Amino acid sequence: MTAESPAQTPRSTIADIARLAGVSVPTVSKVMNGRPDVAEETRRRVEDAISAVGYSRAPRGIRRSDLLEVVFHELESEWALEIVMGVEEAARDQHMAVVITEMHGRRTPGRDWIEGVLARRPVGLVVVFSNLSPQMQARLHRSGIPFVVVDPTGEPVHDTPSVGATNWSGGVTATRHLLGLGHARIGVITGPREILCSRARLDGYRAAMDAAGVTVDPELIRHGDFHVASGERLAREMLQAPNPPTAIVAGNDLMALGVYQAARDAHLRIPEQLSVVGFDDLPVASWVSPPLTTVRQPLAQMASTATRLVIDLARGGQPEQTRVELSTELVVRESTSRPPHAAPAVAPATLPSA
Amino acid sequence: MTAESPAQTPRSTIADIARLAGVSVPTVSKVMNGRPDVAEETRRRVEDAISAVGYSRAPRGIRRSDLLEVVFHELESEWALEIVMGVEEAARDQHMAVVITEMHGRRTPGRDWIEGVLARRPVGLVVVFSNLSPQMQARLHRSGIPFVVVDPTGEPVHDTPSVGATNWSGGVTATRHLLGLGHARIGVITGPREILCSRARLDGYRAAMDAAGVTVDPELIRHGDFHVASGERLAREMLQAPNPPTAIVAGNDLMALGVYQAARDAHLRIPEQLSVVGFDDLPVASWVSPPLTTVRQPLAQMASTATRLVIDLARGGQPEQTRVELSTELVVRESTSRPPHAAPAVAPATLPSA
Repeated sequence: MTAESPAQTPRSTIADIARLAGVSVPTVSKVMNGRPDVAEETRRRVEDAISAVGYSRAPRGIRRSDLLEVVFHELESEWALEIVMGVEEAARDQHMAVVITEMHGRRTPGRDWIEGVLARRPVGLVVVFSNLSPQMQARLHRSGIPFVVVDPTGEPVHDTPSVGATNWSGGVTATRHLLGLGHARIGVITGPREILCSRARLDGYRAAMDAAGVTVDPELIRHGDFHVASGERLAREMLQAPNPPTAIVAGNDLMALGVYQAARDAHLRIPEQLSVVGFDDLPVASWVSPPLTTVRQPLAQMASTATRLVIDLARGGQPEQTRVELSTELVVRESTSRPPHAAPAVAPATLPSA
Repeated sequence: MTAESPAQTPRSTIADIARLAGVSVPTVSKVMNGRPDVAEETRRRVEDAISAVGYSRAPRGIRRSDLLEVVFHELESEWALEIVMGVEEAARDQHMAVVITEMHGRRTPGRDWIEGVLARRPVGLVVVFSNLSPQMQARLHRSGIPFVVVDPTGEPVHDTPSVGATNWSGGVTATRHLLGLGHARIGVITGPREILCSRARLDGYRAAMDAAGVTVDPELIRHGDFHVASGERLAREMLQAPNPPTAIVAGNDLMALGVYQAARDAHLRIPEQLSVVGFDDLPVASWVSPPLTTVRQPLAQMASTATRLVIDLARGGQPEQTRVELSTELVVRESTSRPPHAAPAVAPATLPSA
């Protein structure tokens, strides 16, 4: 742990900022402490002055009071917990404490939130599955607070550094596994159309099917919402159709649990009568009966990578890459087997490589 | 949101503290910022002086930079997530941000942690399933930082305020439900012996069995560790015995998932051939097949109650009760039914009231 040297203390710099912005030192303090009783125009002048004199947190030493913030779209399921654990681990290594904020399903945090962040002056922000408005990005930039997006949705273009996972490859691997077992009627329950990872995983499925020369039946492609109930509903629809699938690839583990429910209601045994593959590999995947075969997305590792990246930025580092994609990996458990009336297995040579 | 009035700013008070402790103002600042380069004896003198001049956070206004800290024994399963959500909700109501710390299985946090807390000066601490050493408690007290324990383990005697749940009643309710369905061979997989809630839930089971005039077979009482694998192992032992149970009460939902695995391996259908009851009602309880009948422990509510209590203490409030127990409640889903060779149902009149 590095204590700040006296030369780095902010007091003299604050006077510089006040002179530059044409305001008093207490007004600068107010802005820096996020107090609401400062006119918007004054606040902007002060923030510009802060930016101009280079009074940012980077580069600097670490203090025990240093905070790192993580912002969630929603805190739901072990998915969020994996992220928290990844951030916590990387922050602890640097003796920083983690502040956690949930936005209750909103994709963009509110004004209250940004005022709070500017008042707390964290070392940096890790933003999960969400966007910050250009105004917020500008204010964080002026305050010298870097941020990194953890984006499992797979958007490859970000104006800020981001960490994701290889969704397309995951879709290929899951489908190839089922093709290799002899399945041809393979249903897909992917995520919402507007989220890019849904498309990437679906494209991976199509690529594997095409490479194996297996025709894709549009009836077997459905869009869920990543919650258990949608997996159950869509699986029921497919299983009740005249020519049901012998295997279903779900867009995440929760929708795979929904498929389990639909299979149970239809008196179908997993995997003997229906194979199921999930995506994520949450702890629950190994706890359900039968344990779920799934595509592991290294959520905790994605979060710790994003955290280290933001700490590096806070110290003035210039990362070589601003988009990192960590690899997904198939974890074979007990929810997949050969189809009931086993067709000959597809030769591995005809399968695409991910 | 209340802004602090100028009269409440710490500057003049810090001079008083320095005078009283016989040290310089910068030394007081160092102690207040948790800097490591202060001798232990000096730190203690300063902390005593802080305590003497009443420079604590209570009673005071709220600032946007205010933090509330929650400390976990371990971040594992949705159990921890429910707690985080409860704390977050109550803290957000008060415009406070939540700092989260995990102790990786340790029951008492380390020295690094307490220095960090004193440096961050949170409004208060919510401590989950853990203990603070008397030294830490004294230092927090001297710094005017209150703390409340969320204690689902059910320890009724705390030297600090705490929030728990009615474990004994939960054990009664779960067992009574199975007796009412006609079960008599009811197995129990409770938690570790050294955790009081395990005993409370087991005592509730015994009370219900005794009141119904059903003999308790010691072979049907096992102690797990709240993890899935122990539930599976202990259920397998019971199911392989000559006279297996027709129902199993698990000490938490995760061990109930282990019972599901053991039942599947033994080719026993739930609930037709084996009834299972859990404890907690984590989201996963309604996601598994069949959905799990369980005793709901209001974890999020326990956490938000503890958070409101600690904020009240920080403001100088004197709570009427320092031990709060929130009630548990049976949630009947699809994992329980009449036993395979149904015995006559026990008349409700003979059952104890929880």
